[in-house]
Amino acid sequence: MTGGTLYGIGVGPGDPELLTLKAVRLVQSCPVVAYPAAEQRPSIARGIVSPHLHEGQIELPFRFPISESAMPLQKFYDEVAEQLSEHLAAGRDVAVLCEGDPMLYGTFMYLHDRLADRYRTEVVPGVSSITASASVLGLPLAYRNDVLSIIPAGLPAETIRERLRDCDSALIIKVGRYFEKVREILRELDLARRAQYVERATMTSQRTMPLDEIDPKSVPYVSMIVVPSAWRPS
Amino acid sequence: MTGGTLYGIGVGPGDPELLTLKAVRLVQSCPVVAYPAAEQRPSIARGIVSPHLHEGQIELPFRFPISESAMPLQKFYDEVAEQLSEHLAAGRDVAVLCEGDPMLYGTFMYLHDRLADRYRTEVVPGVSSITASASVLGLPLAYRNDVLSIIPAGLPAETIRERLRDCDSALIIKVGRYFEKVREILRELDLARRAQYVERATMTSQRTMPLDEIDPKSVPYVSMIVVPSAWRPS
Repeated sequence: MTGGTLYGIGVGPGDPELLTLKAVRLVQSCPVVAYPAAEQRPSIARGIVSPHLHEGQIELPFRFPISESAMPLQKFYDEVAEQLSEHLAAGRDVAVLCEGDPMLYGTFMYLHDRLADRYRTEVVPGVSSITASASVLGLPLAYRNDVLSIIPAGLPAETIRERLRDCDSALIIKVGRYFEKVREILRELDLARRAQYVERATMTSQRTMPLDEIDPKSVPYVSMIVVPSAWRPS
Repeated sequence: MTGGTLYGIGVGPGDPELLTLKAVRLVQSCPVVAYPAAEQRPSIARGIVSPHLHEGQIELPFRFPISESAMPLQKFYDEVAEQLSEHLAAGRDVAVLCEGDPMLYGTFMYLHDRLADRYRTEVVPGVSSITASASVLGLPLAYRNDVLSIIPAGLPAETIRERLRDCDSALIIKVGRYFEKVREILRELDLARRAQYVERATMTSQRTMPLDEIDPKSVPYVSMIVVPSAWRPS
């Protein structure tokens, strides 16, 4: 393959000190740095690496369409891939920043699907918000032969219930507006006392709270409920 | 609480460049550095951080008993916790190194269980071998509403079969001597073509191979089979 190299770089959950040495090196050395950003708001991923950026680098924020009706997500990723492709074809290495880890529910995966066959691609794993949440809460996630499941909160209640029954410990992710539904399921299954809540783990705006005290309207998308293993060594 | 601080530090999957800035800082500044080691072999965790260690630090390797009959594991952790406790009580900060992430099947969890109530404790998340494996294989793990399960290979075949049916993507971990059993289950469930194998991800001895070509006798404990999501954006 000719052209530049595409790097998918995990920048960790939020604390800039949770960047890896490799992420820092590549962010400093790539001539093109691309990152996701919400409309009208500064990019979180860029904020994490900003002390390592320098003048002379080409920055490519990709701003998600406000609604899928304005532009379907898959078409949006097509266009971003095309933009990156121009730089790669011209021989420039491109760093795509990704909050947490690039291969775990990351935006980078959609660009990987479109570009990894055409250009040299390297994925640099990062600290995932999943283990960061467990660290912040001081909750060991999984012991020995525990099955750990990661369950998106947007699934139907019946599916969440079944998946929770099928594992020893769980992380319910992207809670946001599904908080009340999830809390009820946890109460029903008698898991609510074991479960703990954290939002924006390791960011300066991080918040942890007992499940019972949370106002569902206050829960952001970047939030998680950890159901730790019931197993305790004797 | 008085005394020193106990740090549980994830040192990542093996590549020394996958250390976080925070891990480097704490490894350099803690007067006591403890780490797991197998009998008669150099410690992997220590190897990862060795360029950042310096003279004058107290090193405490804890060597696992060769067999559980020689000393039960829980008793072993009691003794290690006691050793660390002496330093903490004397006001010395202690860094406990942990391969991958400390809260995900990590040895640190057993020390956390014994010491976090008595001393200030901070857990520093690290890059997990789970996402490192997906990165190395170039396999996006989980999209959107996928349920991802982490399944230890030592579980009974029937349990592994059920857990695989219950999720969209999976990581089968600690494969080692269970390789043949797991490969048969994957073939049975028609997942073998999708699955990929990696051992010692990101270490210099890393190896990836198609499932069909692997000699079961060659599979080490530190190995993983990734069953990526079948979902692909249209």
